[in-house]
Amino acid sequence: MSRPAVHPVEPPPLIDGRNDAAPPRRVRMKDVQGMPGTSTGLALRLCQFVFTVISLAVMASTSDFPSVTAFRYLVAAVGLQSLWSFTLALIDIYALCVKRSLRNPAVITAYTIGDGVTSTITFAAACACAGITVLISSDLNRCDINHCKRFMSATAMAFISWFAVSPSFFLNFWSLASS
Amino acid sequence: MSRPAVHPVEPPPLIDGRNDAAPPRRVRMKDVQGMPGTSTGLALRLCQFVFTVISLAVMASTSDFPSVTAFRYLVAAVGLQSLWSFTLALIDIYALCVKRSLRNPAVITAYTIGDGVTSTITFAAACACAGITVLISSDLNRCDINHCKRFMSATAMAFISWFAVSPSFFLNFWSLASS
Repeated sequence: MSRPAVHPVEPPPLIDGRNDAAPPRRVRMKDVQGMPGTSTGLALRLCQFVFTVISLAVMASTSDFPSVTAFRYLVAAVGLQSLWSFTLALIDIYALCVKRSLRNPAVITAYTIGDGVTSTITFAAACACAGITVLISSDLNRCDINHCKRFMSATAMAFISWFAVSPSFFLNFWSLASS
Repeated sequence: MSRPAVHPVEPPPLIDGRNDAAPPRRVRMKDVQGMPGTSTGLALRLCQFVFTVISLAVMASTSDFPSVTAFRYLVAAVGLQSLWSFTLALIDIYALCVKRSLRNPAVITAYTIGDGVTSTITFAAACACAGITVLISSDLNRCDINHCKRFMSATAMAFISWFAVSPSFFLNFWSLASS
């Protein structure tokens, strides 16, 4: 899953004395900030985790969220997103502590698919909640009997966490395509 | 914007007689079906156009869509998407007729950004409408006084057109990253 980054142990090939001129067989993926195993990547993951947890907490604190399907879906979606981001943040912390590189194609593929799926689910949930919140607050003017502010806050936090997942996804997808 | 594909007019470089061994300077992007200027790409564009127009027509045919913000937003979003897909379908037809290639980085960048923006807007509108349609039909059981079937049909068509835009976007993004 990971390769040592600072202490490569492969001996240089010494066959017929032309090891200086021979190109390396294994092409290393470029080390871009924001990718898995970098400090910016870890910051992005923590940012995603914090905003999804806030969104989850705010939505779950309303008493009437289970009566609306889209709000239940938001709770499930940001719950899944927070688990995914937290797991990847732990892996990033481990990689940074032992100074290992996570940049190999299998890891990047798994990260890209996971980021793509979770970010799409989070975005869909945020859009559905935004539609219903606008319906309640602007179209029907029923904020007196609903927790409009909490619904809006939870939706906004879900959108922000989607914004934080997108760079991770596009960076991984780009490095996968260009490797 | 486009380069001739069937009659390249560049003469081969003949400097100091080593033209056979020299690698080509300009790297051509690979010709993948589904990309701009291919028949599969044109089919995808026509598919997007047809489904967005159906979604627009079904939603606009309901008398009460202007009373809900998300439904108005859906009409605007699929309207924009249909214009974008129709324009690109026309360009594809032109490129196929005169056998010109559209695969240069500037065109692909413009297509990727346009596809990304329009598909995100369409998906957001479809999700918002889905949230409200589910709220009306399942949570509140008010299908007797609302056009639930038309709302559902319009939402489903918007989702299908988003599914049809996604391959175009990912193919363009992939070829941009790998060029």
